[in-house]
Amino acid sequence: MVTTLPKQSEDFPAWYVEVVKQSGMAEHGLARGSQVIKPWGYAIWEWIQRALDDRFKATGHENLMFPMLIPRSLFEKEAEHVEGFTPQVWVVTHAGDSELEEPLYIRPTSETVIWNAYAKWVQSYRDLPLLYNQWCNVMRAEMRTRLFLRTSEFLWQEGHTAHSTADEAHAEALRMQDVYREVAEDVLAIPVIAGRKPASERFPGAEETYTIEAMMRDTKALQSGTSHFLGQNFARAYDVSFLNDKGEQDFAWGTSWGVSTRIVGAVVMTHGDDRGLRLPPLVAPTQIVIVPIYASDSDQGRVLQAAESLRDDLSGANVRVRVDSRDQHRPGYKFSEWELKGVPVRIELGPKDLDADSAVIVDRVSGEKRRVPLAQVVQSAPEVLSEVQKGLHADALAFRDRNTHEASDFAELREGLIDQGGFWVGPWCGEFSCEEKVTEETKATIRALPRDRVDPGGPCVVCGKAGLERATWGISY
Amino acid sequence: MVTTLPKQSEDFPAWYVEVVKQSGMAEHGLARGSQVIKPWGYAIWEWIQRALDDRFKATGHENLMFPMLIPRSLFEKEAEHVEGFTPQVWVVTHAGDSELEEPLYIRPTSETVIWNAYAKWVQSYRDLPLLYNQWCNVMRAEMRTRLFLRTSEFLWQEGHTAHSTADEAHAEALRMQDVYREVAEDVLAIPVIAGRKPASERFPGAEETYTIEAMMRDTKALQSGTSHFLGQNFARAYDVSFLNDKGEQDFAWGTSWGVSTRIVGAVVMTHGDDRGLRLPPLVAPTQIVIVPIYASDSDQGRVLQAAESLRDDLSGANVRVRVDSRDQHRPGYKFSEWELKGVPVRIELGPKDLDADSAVIVDRVSGEKRRVPLAQVVQSAPEVLSEVQKGLHADALAFRDRNTHEASDFAELREGLIDQGGFWVGPWCGEFSCEEKVTEETKATIRALPRDRVDPGGPCVVCGKAGLERATWGISY
Repeated sequence: MVTTLPKQSEDFPAWYVEVVKQSGMAEHGLARGSQVIKPWGYAIWEWIQRALDDRFKATGHENLMFPMLIPRSLFEKEAEHVEGFTPQVWVVTHAGDSELEEPLYIRPTSETVIWNAYAKWVQSYRDLPLLYNQWCNVMRAEMRTRLFLRTSEFLWQEGHTAHSTADEAHAEALRMQDVYREVAEDVLAIPVIAGRKPASERFPGAEETYTIEAMMRDTKALQSGTSHFLGQNFARAYDVSFLNDKGEQDFAWGTSWGVSTRIVGAVVMTHGDDRGLRLPPLVAPTQIVIVPIYASDSDQGRVLQAAESLRDDLSGANVRVRVDSRDQHRPGYKFSEWELKGVPVRIELGPKDLDADSAVIVDRVSGEKRRVPLAQVVQSAPEVLSEVQKGLHADALAFRDRNTHEASDFAELREGLIDQGGFWVGPWCGEFSCEEKVTEETKATIRALPRDRVDPGGPCVVCGKAGLERATWGISY
Repeated sequence: MVTTLPKQSEDFPAWYVEVVKQSGMAEHGLARGSQVIKPWGYAIWEWIQRALDDRFKATGHENLMFPMLIPRSLFEKEAEHVEGFTPQVWVVTHAGDSELEEPLYIRPTSETVIWNAYAKWVQSYRDLPLLYNQWCNVMRAEMRTRLFLRTSEFLWQEGHTAHSTADEAHAEALRMQDVYREVAEDVLAIPVIAGRKPASERFPGAEETYTIEAMMRDTKALQSGTSHFLGQNFARAYDVSFLNDKGEQDFAWGTSWGVSTRIVGAVVMTHGDDRGLRLPPLVAPTQIVIVPIYASDSDQGRVLQAAESLRDDLSGANVRVRVDSRDQHRPGYKFSEWELKGVPVRIELGPKDLDADSAVIVDRVSGEKRRVPLAQVVQSAPEVLSEVQKGLHADALAFRDRNTHEASDFAELREGLIDQGGFWVGPWCGEFSCEEKVTEETKATIRALPRDRVDPGGPCVVCGKAGLERATWGISY
């Protein structure tokens, strides 16, 4: 099963594909742009879901589920939204042998069907806020697909909230960006810029789009989650009006926010190395693998017994642990395979270890071998896992810092983006023409502006006119 | 919001629809046969998912996710399966403006796409068993829809396993039926018959279908979960062959098993009464609601404070609890609303209660009011919830027993099914002609045969020839 990976530094895209496939995370499906998320990849997604969902609920949200198929006429009520999504929608025209009276669109996102329902659900300010989320699949036609990063069907959560004031809705959009940042940083060990998108990069129908942007190991940017302040756009399009506390009729204010299986790709590309994945312990399907080592049948018995006993103790301490007792593979093969799959910690246990009442602990970040008394393994496990979690974050942060630069003029910005890649920060006048110029010459876009506007620190690095914003440029996935 | 429910005994279908809508569980969607599962209904489903998923994992299964769209040519490889599902499939013909080369079917179930992948994943007996499950949406065209019970799109889990021997696959199908029975009985408080389907009622492509059948409060049967032994049918159709441990090429043996959001309807129709839902505490989104009672502003302050303090204590003891502090409704209105929503336990807290250092606990099953010292509420809560859980099961079991009868001849079976409804048990010769005759005259079908064949106890109640099986007849949803 384990074959040689391409070197990450030599061919990053090939490395990515092979890591994802060989680790058992995902593979391509039959229909155009589809993927199969295999158990190892899906389990990582389940831990991410749990981390997000717990926080959604802690911030007062409830889950629900809207239909996947949206009548075409309903979809077409919000103008910008139609323009943004219609070229990408998958269309259902038949049920069994009979043609449908009206084509149905498979949801590319659910604002339309949800705001249409909110019109029925909201009459008074007392019915607000609505704080709802759904976990589901969505589809968008993609020509060039990459596992996790860009597929026609993907899994995500989409939060959709309605509020009685603009301030409350705006605060909600920021709160959910905070939740995303927290999960990225504290759970996935991914340092992110939590910022604001320029107008050109906003969600179709949004008045403000907030984003978390991460830097991958090839120095490219990956947008990893977005939270939108929708103003009253969808409320107007779908007639979600209510009687406010002054007795006046008003339109509701909205937000929507989403994180998708794309973020699993971010985990791979933020932490992986030439030997494969490196998984943050908090989302690793297996946190510790115990590899028994033996040469003789008599050793096999006592080593396996000790390994299973250690597994039970660790499992009792809420560690996700397994023993790799496969008979057909040698320990060295198993070490490589679990390194490829990114398991944070390996415990080696052989006859000599047992004679010395100890085990060897090897973590996936430092690679150091530590001999630990058997009786202390359970006690030290959380600490080692926590070190790995912190180590991955520190590594990724140092990498991002090394690859983030200040651009003092256009030549530097242009050459930096082309020659070095990474993030380039500098003042921007706020004009689309300057964004366009940078993109045309370098393929880079503005990934984020600070959440609250700051002093740009000088004139626009592109045109030299007065600076308005401090922008971070990068080439993105 | 609360209006009068139709009486359950007078118009069961109308009662069902109104309970589901007024309790905030679900409503119809826009596209034909679609539904919106609202927060109260979805939260119940989430607790059911948790109960099932924990048991799937404890029995060695892993989750994954296959694409929703299946190329038509792939779908058509297993003959019985095609015949069973093709009339019901939803068909995607376009992506954006371009017509697809081959139509894609929205999965009505995923055996075809999954067994096609298993062909790649399985080479040797060492690759088996595959023990996989996915949580997803599926679609089947339905003309007459009922919320939760029959909708074009529904949510479910579908387990798909592959094994190297028939015995192992058969044991798996039975194990998963056991899991379903356990969740129905122990978590949902629904007594079920865990039996086997006659050949006429098997899943298209299965060699044996196991079922859990529950009796609703109108004495009709609801099939609530099925587990199929697929033999080698799908392995042959999709060429899933492997080298067995004797070095011979063989086809893998399969199972599939599913429980859907339909089971939420079973919860409603098994436990509900004229006042609304009665939810088993283990799946109730809110297990205890605290209703503060006050007439004056000064009382309001101390009552709310005491209510919130009690809530925090209960919450700390892992009870799902909320305070209904809405100002615009009187306590009586709140009592009715929470009864309609089926919350298992209500705590009433007013100034007099506080003066007496006590609270009034009312449970949704007995309706009795118990005065409990405030200091003992947290301690007694688990006990009261457990009583409700047991009380609901006992109630449902007594109801099913009262409505289960022995049929000694065809006249009794026929008149019993038509006049009294319920389950009728008797010997059956095993011939389809006798099944057909009963269905034509009474609309009833054989809901289940014992998992292992038993002495039928006499000649066939329909034709009088030698009995082969003991059958349970009933009219089903």
